[in-house]
Order: sequence, then C-alpha cells, then structure tokens
Amino acid sequence: MATDYKTLAGQEFDRAAFESLLRRKVFLWQSFEPYGATKGLFDYGPPLETLEAEVINIWRDHFIRHEKMMALKCSMLTPYNVLKTSGHVDKFADFMCKDPKTGEILRTDHLIKDVIETRLKGDREARGEKIEEVDDPKKKKKASKAAKTAVKLDDNVKQEYEHLLATLDDCTGDGMGALIKKHDIRNPSSGNEVEPPVPVNLMFQTQIGASGKEPAFLRPETAQGQFLSFQKLLEYSDGQLPFASASIGYSFRNELSPRSGLLRVREFLMAEVEHFVDPLSNKQHPKFHLVKDVKLPLLSRTVQSEGGSTPVDISIGEAVASKLVDNETLGYFLVRIMLFMEKIGIDMKKLRFRQHMANEMAHYAADCWDCELLSSYGWVECVGCADRSAYDLSVHMKATGVPLQVKETLKEPVRVEEWVAQLDKKKSGPLFKKDAGKIQAALDALSQDQREELGGKLQKEGSAELEVPDIESKLAKLSLDIVKVEKESRVVTTREYIPNVIEPSFGVGRILYSLMEHVYWTRDGDAARSVMSFKPTVAPVKVLVVPLQKDARFAPLIAQLEQRLDEDAMSFKLDQSGVSIGKRYSRNDELGIPFGITVDYQSLEDNTFTLRDRDSTKQVRASLDQILEAVVKMVRGKEVWADVEKRLPSFESKDEDKEEA
Amino acid sequence: MATDYKTLAGQEFDRAAFESLLRRKVFLWQSFEPYGATKGLFDYGPPLETLEAEVINIWRDHFIRHEKMMALKCSMLTPYNVLKTSGHVDKFADFMCKDPKTGEILRTDHLIKDVIETRLKGDREARGEKIEEVDDPKKKKKASKAAKTAVKLDDNVKQEYEHLLATLDDCTGDGMGALIKKHDIRNPSSGNEVEPPVPVNLMFQTQIGASGKEPAFLRPETAQGQFLSFQKLLEYSDGQLPFASASIGYSFRNELSPRSGLLRVREFLMAEVEHFVDPLSNKQHPKFHLVKDVKLPLLSRTVQSEGGSTPVDISIGEAVASKLVDNETLGYFLVRIMLFMEKIGIDMKKLRFRQHMANEMAHYAADCWDCELLSSYGWVECVGCADRSAYDLSVHMKATGVPLQVKETLKEPVRVEEWVAQLDKKKSGPLFKKDAGKIQAALDALSQDQREELGGKLQKEGSAELEVPDIESKLAKLSLDIVKVEKESRVVTTREYIPNVIEPSFGVGRILYSLMEHVYWTRDGDAARSVMSFKPTVAPVKVLVVPLQKDARFAPLIAQLEQRLDEDAMSFKLDQSGVSIGKRYSRNDELGIPFGITVDYQSLEDNTFTLRDRDSTKQVRASLDQILEAVVKMVRGKEVWADVEKRLPSFESKDEDKEEA
Repeated sequence: MATDYKTLAGQEFDRAAFESLLRRKVFLWQSFEPYGATKGLFDYGPPLETLEAEVINIWRDHFIRHEKMMALKCSMLTPYNVLKTSGHVDKFADFMCKDPKTGEILRTDHLIKDVIETRLKGDREARGEKIEEVDDPKKKKKASKAAKTAVKLDDNVKQEYEHLLATLDDCTGDGMGALIKKHDIRNPSSGNEVEPPVPVNLMFQTQIGASGKEPAFLRPETAQGQFLSFQKLLEYSDGQLPFASASIGYSFRNELSPRSGLLRVREFLMAEVEHFVDPLSNKQHPKFHLVKDVKLPLLSRTVQSEGGSTPVDISIGEAVASKLVDNETLGYFLVRIMLFMEKIGIDMKKLRFRQHMANEMAHYAADCWDCELLSSYGWVECVGCADRSAYDLSVHMKATGVPLQVKETLKEPVRVEEWVAQLDKKKSGPLFKKDAGKIQAALDALSQDQREELGGKLQKEGSAELEVPDIESKLAKLSLDIVKVEKESRVVTTREYIPNVIEPSFGVGRILYSLMEHVYWTRDGDAARSVMSFKPTVAPVKVLVVPLQKDARFAPLIAQLEQRLDEDAMSFKLDQSGVSIGKRYSRNDELGIPFGITVDYQSLEDNTFTLRDRDSTKQVRASLDQILEAVVKMVRGKEVWADVEKRLPSFESKDEDKEEA
Repeated sequence: MATDYKTLAGQEFDRAAFESLLRRKVFLWQSFEPYGATKGLFDYGPPLETLEAEVINIWRDHFIRHEKMMALKCSMLTPYNVLKTSGHVDKFADFMCKDPKTGEILRTDHLIKDVIETRLKGDREARGEKIEEVDDPKKKKKASKAAKTAVKLDDNVKQEYEHLLATLDDCTGDGMGALIKKHDIRNPSSGNEVEPPVPVNLMFQTQIGASGKEPAFLRPETAQGQFLSFQKLLEYSDGQLPFASASIGYSFRNELSPRSGLLRVREFLMAEVEHFVDPLSNKQHPKFHLVKDVKLPLLSRTVQSEGGSTPVDISIGEAVASKLVDNETLGYFLVRIMLFMEKIGIDMKKLRFRQHMANEMAHYAADCWDCELLSSYGWVECVGCADRSAYDLSVHMKATGVPLQVKETLKEPVRVEEWVAQLDKKKSGPLFKKDAGKIQAALDALSQDQREELGGKLQKEGSAELEVPDIESKLAKLSLDIVKVEKESRVVTTREYIPNVIEPSFGVGRILYSLMEHVYWTRDGDAARSVMSFKPTVAPVKVLVVPLQKDARFAPLIAQLEQRLDEDAMSFKLDQSGVSIGKRYSRNDELGIPFGITVDYQSLEDNTFTLRDRDSTKQVRASLDQILEAVVKMVRGKEVWADVEKRLPSFESKDEDKEEA
C-alpha cells in the first residue's frame, strides 16, 4: 500500500508536498487549465519536458545505437482496416454502465470497486475501527457524516466483498453485470440503477479526408506500424534475422474516466521495440553470454500464485536455464531494461520484474514479464516485455496478401515428405464449376494431419465431406476419383517462415513519474527543504550560477562564466535575486540542478570559483577551467562527485554564506 | 521552375533517380503500404528517423539551450472551445467542390489550376510548341492522345488564363465559384459540372471520453497550448519579460488532396517558438548587437511587388535600421534561423528570406518573413517568422476570464488623468433596476475618447443614448443627473499589459526533405554512383567498418573496432558482404555515412587502419586511437576533414582496392 512508500532518504513520502513542488516548479499540469482543464491530458513544463528529452536520448543510445536497432517513425493516424485486422476494433475496449436518468457514463470496474469499498469502509466504521487521523476540519465533517451512514456487514458478506475486489480484474462484462445485480450496485452520485455493462472502444476515431470513406483511429500502440514496415526492415538488414525495429512515438487511449495522474493518460509517449526472430532458433540471443551473470529481482508466476509478492534475486543465466524465463532473447531484454533504469536514476530497490499469470497473457504468448516500478501508487507496470509470437504478421499477411515473411535459401537442399491433396482437374472442373478453385484452396489450407486423415477416410469410405466456407453449400462432397491424397517427396531449397516477435514496450510518462518520486526527498530536519536528486546525466538544468550578492563588480565574471558554459553546451540558470545564497540554493534544489557555481569576492581577486554538489551540499574551490572540466565530466557520466572531491580542494563557506539548516 | 534546379555539384537534378535512392535505402515511404498506402502520411525508415533526431537535437541546443527558452510539451488533443476561440473552427479551411454525380471531392484551387493548365498546354501543343522530350512509351501514348485534343486559344483568353493562374491564391470561395462558372470548369475525370465551392475545415475531429459532450480536434499548430500555458511561463521566469517558450511536437492538417510528398502532409512535426515581449519595449532584443553585422538574403515586399524575385544580401543591422525588417527581435530570429540551417547542412545558396505581401499577413501582424528553401519543387516556405501581436492571448483571456497578461510594478508611481463615467447609484438603481449593472459595465467598456465625447454631449444636450447590447431595449437613455462624466486624476503603481508574440515556426519535415535534396549528388562521370553528403554532425550513421575481404583473421580486429566505437557512442555499420570494397563504399555513400574505416592485411601486422572521407574519397592511415579521435572530433563538429588530412599521413590504396570510377 501507498503508506509503506518511503523516499530515498527513508522518510515518509508526503504526496501532497511532492505534488505541490511539481506545481510550484511547473513540472506538469492538466492541459487547457484556462478552459477548465481536460482529464487525462497533461502538459509538461520546462523541467519535465527537458527531463523527458534527456531520458529519450539515453534510451536511443542504450537501445537503438548500442543494439543496432532500426529506428522507425510511423503514422499515428491509422486506417480502420489496419486496426480491424489487428483486433483492436473488436477488443480494445473497457466496459461501461450508463445511468439512464442522468446520462452519466461510468466505467464498470471503477463503479463496482468504489461502491464495494465504500460499504467495507462503512463496516469498519460501524465496528469502531480507527480509519485514519483526521485533522482537516472539512474531512472531519465528512467523516462524521460517514459515521452516521456506517453499516455493519454480515461476516459472510464482508468476506464475499473482499474476494470480489481481489478477483474483479478477471471479470468479463457479463460477470460484472451479474455482480451489479446481485449486490444492487447503483450510481453513487444519483442512487439510480445503471444499465448493464457494454464494451466501449477506447480508440479515438476520426476521418481522413473529406469523403467520409476513410474512417481512421489514432493508434493505440506504435507496434502495428512497425509490423507493416516488415518488408522494408528486411530489405535494410539484407534479409538477415534476428533484427529489431524501434519506435519512439505517441499512442492514444480514450480512457472513460482517467485517474492517477500521469500513470493513466489519454495521450502518451511510448518507446517500443519489435525484435524479429526465427521461431526455429530457440530464440537464442547472440549477446546473451555477456549478461548471463547479471542478477534480476524476479517475481515468478509460482510465487504469485502462492500469494507471495517478494521477488527473488537470480541471475538471468540461471533463470533461462531453469526455464523460469522462457528464452535468451527475453532474458537479454530484461537485463537491458534494468540497466537502462539504473542509468536514468531509478531506485533499484523500487524495481522488480513480475511474470504474467497465465490468464493475463494473450493466448499465443509464450511468456511475459513486466518491469514494475514502485511509487506512492504502488507497483505499476512501466515496461511490458511480451512475446507476441507470429500473431500480428500472420493476420496482416492474411488480410492483405502481402508476404510479411522471410524467404530463406537453405544451406543445403532438403528432401521433404508431405501429404498433398489435389483435385483431378478434368473431372472436378465440370462437377464443381466455379467452386473448383475455392475447394482446392480449402485443401491447400489443410494441415498435414488433416490431409492424412482425409486420405484415410477416402480410402476407407470412398467419400468424405470438406468444409469450404466460401462456397454456397459450405460443404464439398469429395470422392476417391475426384481427389488424390498422397504422400509426396520433393527437394526443397528455400524455407519460408513468419518470424516471431519479442516486444519490450516502455511507457515513458510512467517511467518519468516514478523517477520523479524516486529522486524526491527532504533535507534532514527540514521538511520544507525538498530536493530532486536527478542524476547529472538527466537533470533538466545542469548548473546554477549564483553571485554571492548583488554587486556590479561580479558582472564581468558572470558574463565570462556564461560564455564558457555555453561553449561547453551546458544548460544553466543564473539566479541573482536578492535573497540569501542559502535560499537560492534551496529553491533550485527543487528543480534538481546538480551543481552550483558561486561567484564571490575571492573570485574577483584570483578568478577561482566554488562548485557545490546538490546532494551533499559540499563545495570545492578551483579555477574556472578545473571547475568546468569537472562539471562536463560529471554531466557526461564520466565522473561522480566523489572523484571531483578527491581532485579539487574542498571549500568551507564562511558563516554568512552558510546554507540555512 | 524545377528544371533550373541543380545538385550541389552543379548537375541536373534527376528527381526520379533521387526518389529511387530514397526508396532503395528506405529513407521513407507512404504509410500502410500493405493496405494500399494512405495519401499524405509517411513513415520514416532508419536513415530519415535518425536524421530527424539529430536535427532536432541541434535545434534544441541552438534554440532552447542557447537562448534559454522554456521547453513545453502540450497536448495534441484539443477541446473544441479552445480552437473556436482561436478562430480555427471558423477559418482553418480549404474550399472544395463536389461532383454531385460521382460524389468525388475536389479541392477548388487545384481543380481550377489543373483544368486551366491543361487548356494552356493544349494551346501550346496546337501552336506546335515543343513541350518536352518524351522517352517513356507510356507518356508518349498520353502525349499523342493530348495532341489530338489540342485546342488553340484566342490570344485574349490565353492572357486571361495566365493572369488567372497568377492571382488564384488571392481568390475567395465566391471568387473561385465565379471562375468555375465563367470558364465552364468541370471535373476532369468525369466531365461533370461541380457544385459551388464550400469551405471544409481541415482539422481532424474526434471525441474525448464516451459521453459525446467533449468534441475535440487534433491541434493544427502547437502554438495554442503555449499561449494557454502563459501563466506558468510567467511564474517560471519570475515575472520577467521578454521570454520565449518552445515546443517540438506534432500537428495535423486534414488535407483534401495531398500532393508533393513530404512537403504537404497530414501529420507533421513542428518546432515552434513563442517569444513574449512588452509591446512598449519597441521589440528590442538584448542580444541583437551580437548579430547586427550578419548578412541575410532578403527578398523584400517592394522587390516582389515590382515582379522581382532576387534577394539582396543585407546586414540585419541595416535592415532593422531602415525598417525593412520591423524590429530587432524579428531580425535576431531571422539570423538564428539562418545559422541553424547552416549548422544542419542546408545549402546557403538555396536559402532566402521572403517578406509577406500585405495581403498574405493576418490583419494584426506588423511584419512577417518566411525562410524559404529551394528544392526541385521550387522555393518552399520551411520556417515562418510572424508577429502575432497580442491577438491570441487577448481572445483566450476574453473567452475564459483568466488573466493571460503581465502585471508589472512600476519603478515609480505615475499620476494619470482619466475620463471616468459613473452612474449615480441612488438615482440609477430605481430607474434602471436590474439593468443598472449592465449599463455601468457598458460605460466602463468605453474608450477614453468615447467617454470624453459622451461627457461633451451630456453637457451640451443634457442627455445621450448609450448602446448596451445586453439589455432588452439595447439602448440606455442617460441624462446629466444620472451619470457623471469627469476627468479624474489618480496615482498608478502597477501596469497591466498583454504581451506581443513573435513566432518562428519550423516545419521539420519540409526542412528534412530540402536537406536531403541539397546533399544529393552523383560522382563525376557516373550517374549511378550517388552520394548523400550529410554533415558528420547530422549523418544517420557515422562510420562504415569494412574488412578488405572475407577473412577470419580480421574478426578480432573488427571486434576491437566495434567495442571502441561503442565506447565512443559512435553509430556504425559493418559491411562484410562479399562484393568489392569499392562497391561497398559506393552503396553506403547512398546512406551518407561520412567516414569509412578499413581493416586490411597491414592492420593485422601493425594495428593501423585507413580512414576514408566520403566526399573526397581520400584516405589517411593511422593507429586506432588516432583514427577514433579524428572521427569523434569530426562528428562533434570540432574538426573537419581538412584538419585531419593535415595531421595524419595520407594513404593511397593499391590498385586492387581502388574504388571503381
């Protein structure tokens, strides 16, 4: 639960204070505030926009460049047919219930959860359990009102409700409809009964052009564009598998009632990799040996089914060998995901990999792991790492007739034995007429086993029926003289196959939100002095320049500093407002600026400056060249503060410059 | 015209060959090809996606970091009301004509242009003028068909048609409707008459949520989100103007019939700056003195109105002093735009700044300049640099009541004299009853001049009428005893004002397309050997690694090279296919890889490698450390090939390794 969540300094996490900082320093806000703000849409201000850009650059370097992935940018606007084939038109939906009297639309699972939780809360109140300390007078009033309506539940009912909440996620629409009837669940704001749940598609629909003939959606994932580009990718990689494509782009989900801030939004940036691999390769990965000893916190399906929630640290080599993780490629990506998280500054104690339960996975998936990050909202999926098998390429190939597959020349020709079912053209033509072609196609579509079975039946009974959905009679009557089913032997020199796809899919907004919570803490003994300890590599602003006080004599030194920082392409903020230097450091700690350069009276004499480390508040004093060298190295991730402290003389500020406690 | 367009090497530009290269090397393609491709939507393959990322990073550094702009990311989904206020719901439209029999939708200006151009072409054919060389048999057939329908036009008609084409862009919908009737313009594909032009809004419409109560659009520009964030920006910059925000994000335009490839698309990346400035500041810019001597190719309104199209090189200091460019801020941005274009590798001979004619600008704009780039499609606007005055902030403030303005404490209090018109509350209450408040509001809305005039009239005539649209009678009768109009003097300590906005707006796709045309050329004497001379700083792949031939002994050296390039974060491509080294260089020149490192037999002996420069095909030979140092410096823009050639010994490849002529 959220109450267990601690800051990196081990303090209670105060979400209200944290959110106040985000607002004050304009990290983010709900979009279109002057027009009343739109739920589920957020704007990023300068600190968060820049943080995102830094994180994306690291992602590009860590995945696209280092792994030689093929970067793709595909369109967001997507024609109806594409998403009909992929299954999104039919299945990308949430259930909702309508209040017929008010017209209100309620997301069904939220409705059930809210009503049942309220009843359980009423029960706890009726039993006299202490709910929480209430200081706020507004809340006190609400609480006393609630106490009046507190109703004690029968023990059986209470147990049933608790079970219901635990299993709600697995419910179908009909299942939820039954729960609503059984427990008389009504719209809490009106008291009205609601209509039965109906699925509502979560894609934003629009039209391309003005003809009305090109219905389209905003894509719900970047993956489909990558699948449809398969032929180009194959061309670019000279036909050699495995290879991976990668897209950083926006996707959309028309949430019925968005909650949880940045964790569930309607418009979001994703970074998705599609790794295409030969299904006969055992999904081995050429670089697996390089990572096999890396340990990951893995929460297995088995542990979860036994009610456990503590991950076990285990090396990926061992995990793949024991089949806990299905294959090397999946394992390799889990390691790369963890290393990426570490690089951007995620707290490794707040990261785990959770295996999907069997009922969470698509029917075709072999294995699936989520990288979850802990925040004050609990454990949240931030990266999904799924095996999509050959599903997507197959359905698009079937729908369009375009070969989304690999044709491989075999090293040596292979003799294969195959059952072949062939109509006798002379006899079948007059008999079946225009249906003959469709019947042959149906025969071609039979599997080897089905062909063998058909041959056996014909031999035994002289005739057999074949389902041919495309013809009027739906069934074709075949006899021994009209179709020949035989085992044939032939030499094959090429192999055609549809690759399997392993897909690590990153929700960038969720990662950024978790990261912001992970780096937030307050200075010992002063909850008002909060700090965002972004790593120098990702910090939105790298350097704070502060003259000791307002003094015109500092101007040339500041100008010199500004010019040098610009030459080194370092972003910086100059704070020469009138408040004390300690206050200026403090308020910029909230922006997460890792280093401060102070211009003081000694600088005027010997052209030295002090360099302050945000996290320790320690300072060193050195020449401008030395200080800039240290800053550049730390920002590029080549050095850390401990290295700089060793190299450069430390500096103790005089009493009047001290930072307030 | 396109035929004048030359490559950087001065060759005729062969667009078919260029497009073939883009397809072959998967720079881009129409989206959703397996589903028949959607017009106006493009996917970027690895070379173009990466080029875009490099260009965007330079843009961020050049504008956001260097100019200390506030980076913003705002939502693409935009509520109806926002775009109603901004004027886009009513005015962001193209005219179309419907063919009532076929249902076809035709963009009106394209329809007129196509039909008239066909007639003029028929006239030229009838007059026996040579149109163009026709080699393609398919085209030949078309041409001979056209010749049969060639009709000579009356000289007056011909002149009228030519004038019509030149002025078509200035036509209103009614104007175009009149032209269609006058010249009997019909749908060329059916021969049918078309319905009169109607405006069709070019925004993609959708719905937020499932209630049907939140109509929304995909934004047509990123600017509106920035305007609505004005208060946050003001907060972040401690209330100090001028400041600028910047957004890199997607916008959408539902083109009726997209043409011209990447130059007119339905979904596009923009980089937009909104620079907010005090209108009383004269729009001076604090850094203008740094750029005042930079010369720009300026094509003024005057030159254009005299039929000229040749820009004049003039220093921006002079241009602002002579008022050719309206103000310093606009001038400063024109210079920064040009420097950015130079940085990414735009051919400076194919860049000009064109001033908008008076009828091209919004009514409120003071001045507007486009940065145009020349490509085989002619001069195309790639950056617009407009003065949006206080328009957007004012309309949103009026519509929402949220103060999108600056409140400034004056350095010294100021005594102002103002006409004040005030109802006598005791008398006006009983007389006007519930209308009294509305009448006072109407008085408050009067300008100083209007109040003075009202006062004069009351003095002279004893009574006057006041328009009050909100009350039933629409007019209020005022008399001397009921309203007092007096000049009052008071001391003012603050000033409220709505900033003016100067907006440089970059179309990223158009810039990328122009850049690709600008860097394309073919080696002397061999049109088949084409080269994309991307600058090392933006090239999608930095290094080509080529072993002289297939030889297992090279493997450890290649592995060493790969590791070192990875450590330096250099993207590279390894080409060890069986073809000659010259061919491998050639085919990778098409990807624009600036440097090639060759592993040969001498490398086995002394661990030296050769480094090849793509543009000159010259080579040097040195140790791995020296070669990597040179590559890193050139990729970071700190050195160019000429520097490296001076430092490192040149290498002449033996006959058998020579690149084919």
